[in-house]
Amino acid sequence: MAHSIAEIAAALGAKAFGATDLMVDKASEPAAAGPADLALAMTPAYAPALAAGQARCAVVWPDADWQSMGLEAAIFAPRARLAMSRLTQMLDQPLPAIGIAPTAQIDPSAQIGEGVHIGHFTVIGAGAVIGDGCWIGDQVTIHAGVLVGKATVLHPGVRLQRAVTLGDNVILQPNVVIGGDGFSFVSAAPSHVEAARETLGEGPTVIPDDPTWYRIHSLGGVTLADNVEIGASSTVDAGTIRATQIGEGTKIDNQVQVGHNVIIGAHCLLCAQSGVAGSTMIGDRVVIGGMAGVADNLKIGDDVVLGGASVVLSNVPAGRVMMGYPATKMKSHVDSYKALRRLPRLLRNLGKS
Amino acid sequence: MAHSIAEIAAALGAKAFGATDLMVDKASEPAAAGPADLALAMTPAYAPALAAGQARCAVVWPDADWQSMGLEAAIFAPRARLAMSRLTQMLDQPLPAIGIAPTAQIDPSAQIGEGVHIGHFTVIGAGAVIGDGCWIGDQVTIHAGVLVGKATVLHPGVRLQRAVTLGDNVILQPNVVIGGDGFSFVSAAPSHVEAARETLGEGPTVIPDDPTWYRIHSLGGVTLADNVEIGASSTVDAGTIRATQIGEGTKIDNQVQVGHNVIIGAHCLLCAQSGVAGSTMIGDRVVIGGMAGVADNLKIGDDVVLGGASVVLSNVPAGRVMMGYPATKMKSHVDSYKALRRLPRLLRNLGKS
Amino acid sequence: MAHSIAEIAAALGAKAFGATDLMVDKASEPAAAGPADLALAMTPAYAPALAAGQARCAVVWPDADWQSMGLEAAIFAPRARLAMSRLTQMLDQPLPAIGIAPTAQIDPSAQIGEGVHIGHFTVIGAGAVIGDGCWIGDQVTIHAGVLVGKATVLHPGVRLQRAVTLGDNVILQPNVVIGGDGFSFVSAAPSHVEAARETLGEGPTVIPDDPTWYRIHSLGGVTLADNVEIGASSTVDAGTIRATQIGEGTKIDNQVQVGHNVIIGAHCLLCAQSGVAGSTMIGDRVVIGGMAGVADNLKIGDDVVLGGASVVLSNVPAGRVMMGYPATKMKSHVDSYKALRRLPRLLRNLGKS
Repeated sequence: MAHSIAEIAAALGAKAFGATDLMVDKASEPAAAGPADLALAMTPAYAPALAAGQARCAVVWPDADWQSMGLEAAIFAPRARLAMSRLTQMLDQPLPAIGIAPTAQIDPSAQIGEGVHIGHFTVIGAGAVIGDGCWIGDQVTIHAGVLVGKATVLHPGVRLQRAVTLGDNVILQPNVVIGGDGFSFVSAAPSHVEAARETLGEGPTVIPDDPTWYRIHSLGGVTLADNVEIGASSTVDAGTIRATQIGEGTKIDNQVQVGHNVIIGAHCLLCAQSGVAGSTMIGDRVVIGGMAGVADNLKIGDDVVLGGASVVLSNVPAGRVMMGYPATKMKSHVDSYKALRRLPRLLRNLGKS
Repeated sequence: MAHSIAEIAAALGAKAFGATDLMVDKASEPAAAGPADLALAMTPAYAPALAAGQARCAVVWPDADWQSMGLEAAIFAPRARLAMSRLTQMLDQPLPAIGIAPTAQIDPSAQIGEGVHIGHFTVIGAGAVIGDGCWIGDQVTIHAGVLVGKATVLHPGVRLQRAVTLGDNVILQPNVVIGGDGFSFVSAAPSHVEAARETLGEGPTVIPDDPTWYRIHSLGGVTLADNVEIGASSTVDAGTIRATQIGEGTKIDNQVQVGHNVIIGAHCLLCAQSGVAGSTMIGDRVVIGGMAGVADNLKIGDDVVLGGASVVLSNVPAGRVMMGYPATKMKSHVDSYKALRRLPRLLRNLGKS
Repeated sequence: MAHSIAEIAAALGAKAFGATDLMVDKASEPAAAGPADLALAMTPAYAPALAAGQARCAVVWPDADWQSMGLEAAIFAPRARLAMSRLTQMLDQPLPAIGIAPTAQIDPSAQIGEGVHIGHFTVIGAGAVIGDGCWIGDQVTIHAGVLVGKATVLHPGVRLQRAVTLGDNVILQPNVVIGGDGFSFVSAAPSHVEAARETLGEGPTVIPDDPTWYRIHSLGGVTLADNVEIGASSTVDAGTIRATQIGEGTKIDNQVQVGHNVIIGAHCLLCAQSGVAGSTMIGDRVVIGGMAGVADNLKIGDDVVLGGASVVLSNVPAGRVMMGYPATKMKSHVDSYKALRRLPRLLRNLGKS
């Protein structure tokens, strides 16, 4: 959908200059921009590309000398990424108006709200409740009794298992699995693993009479609060006797694993391929970097930041920034790491003296 | 389904006291328990919550003074998690009795056993054999010729590719993929990677005349033994000329990757996001922690324990407990780690002297 | 399909000796080979198994004394794995000739090429273009407007979201997701994470007035070049205003994550559970080991090799071999690691002196 520069600037709460009646329907990188595109050049590094490209208008950095770069109009964006949020939302297309596909299998006892879209071959079980304005893609499975709030979006291949409750405005990317059974097994007698924690692995190996791993069933389901988004192929397991919970506004990237009984607070970010093991509690506004892991049964305070690929093996107080394996305060980690890099030469020198 | 305290105690092999004819149909955490729930308070840490909650009966720790906490009945559980296994099994609901959905596409040459359930839009190929009592959810795909044992459960979105054989009582959580093609490619001439292993990366970069990665096809399929369970979105690749194998009673968590030609023994545990690379052999009763990785072409002995996020780059003898990157004996890893934490101060002191 | 030893040798460009008219239709490991199988014994380590097994013919290592091991025919393979590529291709079965399933939902405006196979319950949206000779399995979803080249293979459960373009001869294993929305969020004011990068986490915790994570929409889609293969359950996110790109002949293993805006060059290998974060650029012929991660907004040169489980936090020049967390040159990493293993004793000795 085309918008004028003036309209876009108004939506961004930004100032516009020049020919603000120019119409654009697409944003582009400066070098690739055609004459009908809005170039995005939010830092001075883009200046040469902007001058070389064909854009007639651009979103530029504060104080950019836009006229000298051949532009006919410019929008000044004080916080570039925030502008990107509003701009990409304006230029996005709505989800396809698919209605309710005739091939969808919807149990007669399910309650479907107003204005809901349901794709081909999607299955909705008995007693499930789908709120007004939801958009459910093709080939989704929704177990009997699942509750879905309003305006929630489920992309193709999403699996909602038993006892799952989703809030309003939730977005689940393709192939997300919510409510799979927790990984919870127990041996008849205390196991080798249990012993290893106490002996640091120095005790004798005891081979059990009964090596069976007995299954603890997952009866508790999962609850996702409003405005949660979860990325492609991520998994959130069901709790044992109460729900695994993810708080309001928390955003989760692709291929993230959230174990059974975990409680995650509001407005957290969990980056790709990170994981939180069973029964751990994560506070509000926590940021977990890509590939970072948090062990089971821990408490992570509010506003904690875990660097990419760090591994947390003990509780973390509120506000702390952690890195490494095992994770320590970022400063300690950097000090140890720098010292380690100097160590080979130190050892060589000690060998000489 | 409701059970009396006496019935539950009998099933757990535990002793019950007080009003053992009280009926419960749900287990709850002590603080959240209503008057009709069975509270689970297996350690003394739960005492205050139990006293504050509304539960009339509970499973309690050995020697708990249950009457003083206001309970009318109590079950004593000597090994709490083992009791959880039996208890959650009793209180669980059976899988939905979905019969054979009219929308399922079952090849006429497939053999379907007695009492099998097959969900909507599931596809079963020519010559596949499904054992008695299996429960197969919606939107599962089963390739021609696949063999599935008795009483096996396949949740929605499971993919069984060519030459897959599953034993009895196997459970596959949603979106598990068994039998995808192995990641097996070869260059026409020895590659940069092959050289790097020998030169520790100090040799010259040789740019190949032919950079193509030629594909080695996967003809060997996958065999899962009886009582294997695999978590959501995990993947087990097909072997090259013989099957990738997972042994009896082994339990695998979510988002675990098992490479082509791998052989995993019986009664192992592989925690979430761990991975075993191609052609590695894992013994019996091995435990692999979350996010831990085992490189290709290795042998890991029986009863080995790999700590969370450890990375194994060489063979490991039976019974050893390993940690770190690269993984070493747990005790060595802890010693090195403690020394590393002292190192920055040591270097500062050496700088002064 | 059966082939004679002479035919196979010709296809491999290898020499054959003995009864080269023997027919085989299956390759086996030496110990498991039956009398009608072709044993694969490409290194001398297999000699005892070969002598013990029932194989009448084998592919053997250069200079093997095949007659003394009881074989009637032998093929000599100068580069074993390359021979495996050609051999497994010859012995593989073609994909099932499924035609176009009557249950597939194909929008009338979609263009389907010649000789295309489309499985049960697959959905193809408006305006999508599917090239000649494609094979699309059951339960695939292809969004409106997606472009698929010729002879491309999409296994069951693949999801192609909006604005995805695939080249020719692409292979996507089951449950791959291409074009999910990027993980791109921004806070109204600079966040705690942004501050932590500057202060190494030593600054005060600032709790934001508005903790909301605002969504940046993904309008740019994904482009996969010719001959790309992607493993089961891997995910490639859509770019923000231009496509995320994967170059010609690049092969990606299972459970790999490629973030939004990433550009990966030609003929790379990305092993299982590795990840590349948003906007990073990867050169040609780069090899990324299993579980290795590359942080966002970096440049990785051509011919770089990243060891398994390494974590790259800064740019890497062409040709370098890297290991560790954070990754350094392989040689430096090995030196530091060896020194670390000696450190506990050093500290004990220093304590004594």
